[in-house]
Amino acid sequence: MASDLSQTDLARKQIWVAPLTRILTTEVSQHVGERVLLAGWLYQLRRMGGVNFLILRDRKGLLQVVLNGVRLLQHILPESVLQVTGLVVAEPRAQGGYELHDVEIELLSPVTEALPYPIHIPQVNVHLDTFLDHAIVGLRHPRQRALFRLSAGLVTGFRSTLDGLDFTEIQSPKLVGAATESGANVFEVDYFGRQAYLAQSPQFYKQMMTTVFERVYEVGPVFRAEPHDTTRHVNEYVSLDVELAFIQEHHDVMAMVEKVVGGMIEYLGSHCADEIALLQVNLPAVPAPFPEIYFPEAQQLIFERWGEDCRGEPDLAPQHERWLGQWAREIYRSDFLFVTGYPMEKRPFYTHPRPSDAKYSNSFDLLFRGTELVTGGQRLHRYQDYLQAAQARGIQPQKISGYLEAFRYGAAPHGGFAIGLERFVMQLLGLSNIREATLFPRDLNRITP
Amino acid sequence: MASDLSQTDLARKQIWVAPLTRILTTEVSQHVGERVLLAGWLYQLRRMGGVNFLILRDRKGLLQVVLNGVRLLQHILPESVLQVTGLVVAEPRAQGGYELHDVEIELLSPVTEALPYPIHIPQVNVHLDTFLDHAIVGLRHPRQRALFRLSAGLVTGFRSTLDGLDFTEIQSPKLVGAATESGANVFEVDYFGRQAYLAQSPQFYKQMMTTVFERVYEVGPVFRAEPHDTTRHVNEYVSLDVELAFIQEHHDVMAMVEKVVGGMIEYLGSHCADEIALLQVNLPAVPAPFPEIYFPEAQQLIFERWGEDCRGEPDLAPQHERWLGQWAREIYRSDFLFVTGYPMEKRPFYTHPRPSDAKYSNSFDLLFRGTELVTGGQRLHRYQDYLQAAQARGIQPQKISGYLEAFRYGAAPHGGFAIGLERFVMQLLGLSNIREATLFPRDLNRITP
Repeated sequence: MASDLSQTDLARKQIWVAPLTRILTTEVSQHVGERVLLAGWLYQLRRMGGVNFLILRDRKGLLQVVLNGVRLLQHILPESVLQVTGLVVAEPRAQGGYELHDVEIELLSPVTEALPYPIHIPQVNVHLDTFLDHAIVGLRHPRQRALFRLSAGLVTGFRSTLDGLDFTEIQSPKLVGAATESGANVFEVDYFGRQAYLAQSPQFYKQMMTTVFERVYEVGPVFRAEPHDTTRHVNEYVSLDVELAFIQEHHDVMAMVEKVVGGMIEYLGSHCADEIALLQVNLPAVPAPFPEIYFPEAQQLIFERWGEDCRGEPDLAPQHERWLGQWAREIYRSDFLFVTGYPMEKRPFYTHPRPSDAKYSNSFDLLFRGTELVTGGQRLHRYQDYLQAAQARGIQPQKISGYLEAFRYGAAPHGGFAIGLERFVMQLLGLSNIREATLFPRDLNRITP
Repeated sequence: MASDLSQTDLARKQIWVAPLTRILTTEVSQHVGERVLLAGWLYQLRRMGGVNFLILRDRKGLLQVVLNGVRLLQHILPESVLQVTGLVVAEPRAQGGYELHDVEIELLSPVTEALPYPIHIPQVNVHLDTFLDHAIVGLRHPRQRALFRLSAGLVTGFRSTLDGLDFTEIQSPKLVGAATESGANVFEVDYFGRQAYLAQSPQFYKQMMTTVFERVYEVGPVFRAEPHDTTRHVNEYVSLDVELAFIQEHHDVMAMVEKVVGGMIEYLGSHCADEIALLQVNLPAVPAPFPEIYFPEAQQLIFERWGEDCRGEPDLAPQHERWLGQWAREIYRSDFLFVTGYPMEKRPFYTHPRPSDAKYSNSFDLLFRGTELVTGGQRLHRYQDYLQAAQARGIQPQKISGYLEAFRYGAAPHGGFAIGLERFVMQLLGLSNIREATLFPRDLNRITP
């Protein structure tokens, strides 16, 4: 696109001749007095004191560009993609302290329609459904970008912590021949005329793989065909899965949860300072060990303190979790609380019972700020125990024979846990809906974009 | 399980009193003269010179255990899981230089059936189908364990290289409302009564996300419903995907391929020395830049050199790729060869045409040792171009409106590539079937284990 400063003019002035390498908005301070090339999105056009400015956004930040003497940009709307060459000038009044003068602009990709909703404001303020319908626009907002950078940071922190503890990363299949958990909430796939399912979790495979590597982890999608419409559930999410062999019981798994969650928080603290500042994240303290309460005692506490008698019920309701979170905060000053020993009847068939009372289990949930973040426990490891447990739940062993083979040919005592990535981000940022922590959420009504 | 050396005897001898922390087979050298606790799988029982030995395997290695005076282990078969306490003794005749004496053994998990095939031999030697039917047994073999450690190393090398180049990791949905590539080879899912598909690649999402982060990558499963039965294809595999904005053309993408593939090879070299030695991997040299040949010239070369006239055909056959790989090896001493400019007709609709000849494209394949390893190229980036390209291919724009919105509201010139993880492992190790590089492969006949 032409401008008042044509390339010929510039060449004649001997400011530059060869094509320049693109620099980023955060690098201009190293190029004061030089002509540089930048590229990015048209964030804003504004007029101040008779001067036209353009704010350019790239992946690192914003830069003010002075348009004196540059025509055009008449019908060009925000989010158009531009390439800008110009002279870097220190300007204390500009945001960031620098601006670009004597510019030449090339339009790489024009936008000719108004955005579906404004994003060049401190916070996008539209109904969540509208936001998600046009997610690819809303995700460009600095807050959303910081949020998903933080999410990526949690994943990197997860992996690097486990790599340091001698775990091996695995990639298990998502198309499976047998449902992992109950058969009800599973998506069915037509697999060349045969029935297949989408994996509800890598549970079977991570357990199996402890007989190969002892310690394994996986980061991957899981699929739940639950026809719920809640603010805490989506139908596809990212599960961070861990499984380790040669444990004594579930407290060994819980000690690993502490290391991993601690490692993730620590990684954010040391690698995501900008995102934390922008999103005003209050990183939790990571006490060692996390406080713990035994399931029946948690119910007794709820009864005594809040007057609701849930004693004898097989699970905790969301309100119970919130109360317990509040209690842990008061008594232990901890954002984390382990609840241990959930009744067997609500836990999957591979759960190891509590040796002293088989009504309860060697399992746990980790509550983070009053919401379940991690679920885990010790698993059965002897083949005969699996045959009995399957029979007791009406599961036909031949339907899961590939899984059972791992135990038939020698599995060590083991356990593990899973962290829901989006749930972690949601709790960390105090979001009101898990969809805000999911790039392109999948729910009852939403399969696009 | 009882043994001649009971715990009471040991306590009386004052050798140890408190429970020991487990050590690994590779750590015994630091504990000569001490009683230690190890745990693992019964690798072998053998009798030498009137003495019974047991070889214990853990995630790090093997250790010889002397069974003098220990009864039992009568009906215990290989792969049973044991916990062994004993005294570490230096023994030059033992493999590794140490063995365990005066042992006490606890059986953690018994195996009472013979394995489906022997794995305590230098190389598992059964038909691939038999191997895969009982993969969880075969995967315990040292070669298989090394192979999948190497595979994990490639993934870590991929991520760490891209993290260092300012890329952001994303997790895109695998349940999608619109097929990415052609509609034919896609698995269909019943999504709460609506039609959904399994993502054939994260192509649409990684392109969209360049408008948010400029540079993104993803490691995740992709699903291809191709009813082929070849040694080079499976129906679910792990795709390593990269996409970057602000390129001039496909050579900028190819330069990124060189960095990423180079980074992966370098990571293996520095982190997987044991696996490389065991598997006798010949790591490729990584020339910079990789040699390149233009598609029509490659066809001309094949005609002149091997006499097969494939000039004018829209794609290369596997035999053509092998010839070209051989030629690159001879002429450039390179295991890598870029073929650039594939005809548009065989490339997807989002491919950017070659500006000087729209019959060809700004796309490429990277051949590694004569097989396609990477596919990539420059994409269209202007909304109007997408509308035209979709129309030309008979794609209804409203069916991919979520994707097109990224371009409607400003996408930068961009491109990217994808590496098939299992394909890379296969070529690196010279395997004859990609299933050997897949933990639990999915193909026309196989959906379990």
